[in-house]
Amino acid sequence: MHNCYAFDGGNAGDWRVVSMSPRCGAALESVEYIDVRRSDRREEIPTSTWTLHGQISNLRYATRAEVTTLRSTQEALGRPEARQAALIPIKKSEAWWNLAQDERRSLFEEQSQHTAIGVSYLPAIARQLYHCRDLRQPFDFLTWFEYAPENAGAFEELVTKLRLTTEWRYVEREMDIRLERYR
Amino acid sequence: MHNCYAFDGGNAGDWRVVSMSPRCGAALESVEYIDVRRSDRREEIPTSTWTLHGQISNLRYATRAEVTTLRSTQEALGRPEARQAALIPIKKSEAWWNLAQDERRSLFEEQSQHTAIGVSYLPAIARQLYHCRDLRQPFDFLTWFEYAPENAGAFEELVTKLRLTTEWRYVEREMDIRLERYR
Repeated sequence: MHNCYAFDGGNAGDWRVVSMSPRCGAALESVEYIDVRRSDRREEIPTSTWTLHGQISNLRYATRAEVTTLRSTQEALGRPEARQAALIPIKKSEAWWNLAQDERRSLFEEQSQHTAIGVSYLPAIARQLYHCRDLRQPFDFLTWFEYAPENAGAFEELVTKLRLTTEWRYVEREMDIRLERYR
Repeated sequence: MHNCYAFDGGNAGDWRVVSMSPRCGAALESVEYIDVRRSDRREEIPTSTWTLHGQISNLRYATRAEVTTLRSTQEALGRPEARQAALIPIKKSEAWWNLAQDERRSLFEEQSQHTAIGVSYLPAIARQLYHCRDLRQPFDFLTWFEYAPENAGAFEELVTKLRLTTEWRYVEREMDIRLERYR
């Protein structure tokens, strides 16, 4: 099992950067392209401006019922029609990480409907979460979304809803990077 | 915040190895001493026979009530009287990691009383959990226990109880290393 991925920001890659907007906290340096590759987390590509590493890991909050719904509804990354994407790296505050599991679960779902909001945009908006807090990266998560151009409006709704949740009050660094498939 | 630790098995270190017993899965090579140090996880000590890396991370199952009990009862590592220790690296099966959060929580506590068993031996048996699954290490967790020699019997009870739990059926590799403070 090899679940580590690297996101190289630079002047070449499969995805062309359409916009980079710092939502809060320090901005990432502007780049023209992002390349996504499987990786050992120790590698660096010398030509990239920055590299973010993340890892697909086990689900941390979803119940069995939620997992069943997700798996039956979501589609994989890489659909030919999904020519737009968003990479939104997020870091949560120490206050979040100091919460107990039941408190984080309650904020995540009962108060913020994080999974429920995501499910309501499936299968149009495909999603993948990469964990990186335990890899000592500058962010805790790299969130990735892929969708067809005709679903760009739905994606705006989705991120707007998530950012209005109670959970989002614990986000202390967030960078919003919009992409289109280049090759 | 720098929460990464390395456990170097070799011929020198703060802890002398009293015994090394493979409980299940592949054994670790025998060593005479283990040294515990803060680390960047990328470092290796060339003189050590093996090095296990782990990281103190957020709690994954404990509720607020359990966290409050733990924090009010447990003692820190490094007590002068705690001259005995155990390092028990553990790897859980893919079946465990594929469970949903509510299923893992139920197995961990409602069915296995993992926290409750640990709490019943506080403050005598000090504990620290190091996570390493997301560091791509050979184990998922490094569990560490420290106690005074007069509490060695209590420690045997504690590990015996944990190994009889339903949760332990998901442990597919476990090495039991007993130590005494050397310097």
